[in-house]
Amino acid sequence: MTCGVRTFSDAFRSDFAALLHWRRDVRAFRTDPVDEALLSECLDAFLTAPSVGLSEPWRVVRVTSGSARAAALANFRAANAEALESYEEERATAYARLKLSGMERAPVHLVVCCDDSTAKGSGLGARTMPEMRRYSVVAAITQFWLAARTHGLGVGWVSILDPERLLRDLALPDAWRLVGYLCVGWPEAEDDTPELARAGWDAPRGHLPLWER
Amino acid sequence: MTCGVRTFSDAFRSDFAALLHWRRDVRAFRTDPVDEALLSECLDAFLTAPSVGLSEPWRVVRVTSGSARAAALANFRAANAEALESYEEERATAYARLKLSGMERAPVHLVVCCDDSTAKGSGLGARTMPEMRRYSVVAAITQFWLAARTHGLGVGWVSILDPERLLRDLALPDAWRLVGYLCVGWPEAEDDTPELARAGWDAPRGHLPLWER
Repeated sequence: MTCGVRTFSDAFRSDFAALLHWRRDVRAFRTDPVDEALLSECLDAFLTAPSVGLSEPWRVVRVTSGSARAAALANFRAANAEALESYEEERATAYARLKLSGMERAPVHLVVCCDDSTAKGSGLGARTMPEMRRYSVVAAITQFWLAARTHGLGVGWVSILDPERLLRDLALPDAWRLVGYLCVGWPEAEDDTPELARAGWDAPRGHLPLWER
Repeated sequence: MTCGVRTFSDAFRSDFAALLHWRRDVRAFRTDPVDEALLSECLDAFLTAPSVGLSEPWRVVRVTSGSARAAALANFRAANAEALESYEEERATAYARLKLSGMERAPVHLVVCCDDSTAKGSGLGARTMPEMRRYSVVAAITQFWLAARTHGLGVGWVSILDPERLLRDLALPDAWRLVGYLCVGWPEAEDDTPELARAGWDAPRGHLPLWER
């Protein structure tokens, strides 16, 4: 425990807002490797993430073998082809043009799972909302994503996957559940506008509607 | 779109690591109000959060009326009493001693939901993993949590609730799903160690185990 209160400056807050503004879901990566010490430093963001009951249910798997990567890529391609079939006319044409994963080139692939069977935390806070364990994993991924971007490192979250098939193909434990498949590497280009907005798929709302009760 | 690349300094990265380290789940709040402009600035963190297909499925509800707050507090108390019954002996004694919500005193209460029926984003990325919409809401909450802490503002996420009953009591749309009930306000005290760790409930692991495939 550290004594005293940690405060943050206006300059830090301004840079933090820029960090949120410049974080991107990256799908176009350079193939040069990511330094292991740098990756490890970014992964430290998991250690301070909020988790329900201190359950820390995140399970991070590095996908390095050719066979595991090929299985993941085939999984994405099949799910993406099925998704394409669900759109009609102009929307299908637009979908087909999108680049939706950087799996072919990203040097680092991470499968991030949630262990719903963990005893850590003794179930505190997850009795009526067991999904809180998965939400804890998402919070940790979000912190990792931002930490990576402070170094200019890009992260892309691939969700166009059959999650059960991926866990089976990678022979991961039955109690684990896929939360995110992350591609990590140096982005080919930086931008402060989401790629889907640049491609005309949809646009950020730009304001937060609020309800009241 | 802004031209050029935004980079971050070593000093910023060091402060960012401190931000992650000092973020806490706060349950002990002062009752003095939170300035509306400050709250609004923190809520801007939702606008830049990653969301699947740019669906932006977050729905933020301010809980201000006495009746809505009373319903939420009664909901927490009932769920917490049931949770207590699920523990035995020493663990039950330890659970009973924990302070698990700041709902009685926090000046700002937010119900953050996910609209699973949203048309925004046209379902992109959420076909095989529809939970990605809820995960997008969690990412936005995480960004808000960190933004609040840059100002010294505390956030506490209450999950010991019957989520369906809360949505019904607050007459929120059927397609919405509760992701998080957030208490927001000035913390009574700051600390860099999780309250559950200080109370001896569990301890952070302190390292990230990695698997490989």
